[in-house]
Amino acid sequence: MGNRLARDPGSRFSQGLKEERILGVDPGTVRTGWGVIDVSGSSLLYLAHGTIEPPKTQGQGSRLSCIYHGLQEVLSRYQPRGISLEKVFFARNAQSVLKLGQARGVALLAGAENDITVHEYSPTEIKMAVVGYGHASKVQVQKMVGSLLHLSSLISPDAADALAAAICHLHQRSYRARVLEALPSSGQEGRRWGNP
Amino acid sequence: MGNRLARDPGSRFSQGLKEERILGVDPGTVRTGWGVIDVSGSSLLYLAHGTIEPPKTQGQGSRLSCIYHGLQEVLSRYQPRGISLEKVFFARNAQSVLKLGQARGVALLAGAENDITVHEYSPTEIKMAVVGYGHASKVQVQKMVGSLLHLSSLISPDAADALAAAICHLHQRSYRARVLEALPSSGQEGRRWGNP
Repeated sequence: MGNRLARDPGSRFSQGLKEERILGVDPGTVRTGWGVIDVSGSSLLYLAHGTIEPPKTQGQGSRLSCIYHGLQEVLSRYQPRGISLEKVFFARNAQSVLKLGQARGVALLAGAENDITVHEYSPTEIKMAVVGYGHASKVQVQKMVGSLLHLSSLISPDAADALAAAICHLHQRSYRARVLEALPSSGQEGRRWGNP
Repeated sequence: MGNRLARDPGSRFSQGLKEERILGVDPGTVRTGWGVIDVSGSSLLYLAHGTIEPPKTQGQGSRLSCIYHGLQEVLSRYQPRGISLEKVFFARNAQSVLKLGQARGVALLAGAENDITVHEYSPTEIKMAVVGYGHASKVQVQKMVGSLLHLSSLISPDAADALAAAICHLHQRSYRARVLEALPSSGQEGRRWGNP
């Protein structure tokens, strides 16, 4: 499991956000990527990333067990406040969606067992947050994640996708905070429209 | 969870099989059916069945957690030697296969965590074993499961599907045992063909 530290100037993220740690997960029965990021003030702080790769000789139950315990270990070590996952809309065939669903099932279970909220974002939302373009390629996401987190070498596509999901959550959270700051309070709105 | 006892004359199952307990599971995020059957000699012994139905208000992680702990409780109470599941080949859309995969994932994990082998059978194999017709309807399976296990009232379709998967495993096991009985031993074969 990778465990490196990097700072991001964080110009894409608003000021005044409280510190939050998020775990991004890219589940798969062959490889499950994960990555942990902190937001501190306006900075993105990369903490760690890794890939859980169950032995190919194992049956599907044992592979899922390996993923489940691997994620439990990551959750216990980094204690994130939330988990971010990519939503799934389609896949090549039923068998690949089924296997992906099985891996997602144990990731969601690991979150629920640790009472951690799981946030899901569409592939377009994740690519928009990281690359600024909703149809970006996997390589573009991989490079941009490395650049945003100031990583010195290219990381695996699975870990990059996991970190991208985490960045997307922090980006969306920052966007929501700015919208709330810009809006007048609901009480004032009520007085303005309900009691002219 | 239902917990009733019934005996089956077991004419469909061969003599001389050792006792074995199997848990059939029909996973689903809305309802997960389960049923436990023993084979003792030539008899099928129905032990219990039930449905795990997580509250509809819960998020998907909590629902999966409810299914996982429900199955863990069943495994701990009945200590089956194996789990039998229906294979999935297709579904209406990617979202339904994904959700089914998530529920299957936690069922497979529960099996692996308890070191219990999971056996999978196609829908056709299960219908053939229970109804004798590979394109039988859900209602035919439901009625035939009740009849084979001498149940006094109709059980839910999810529990019936779970019991059908368990019956299929015991049927396949009985069939394999009969084939092995009918075959000359490999040693004799060796002498007959290798050393004339």
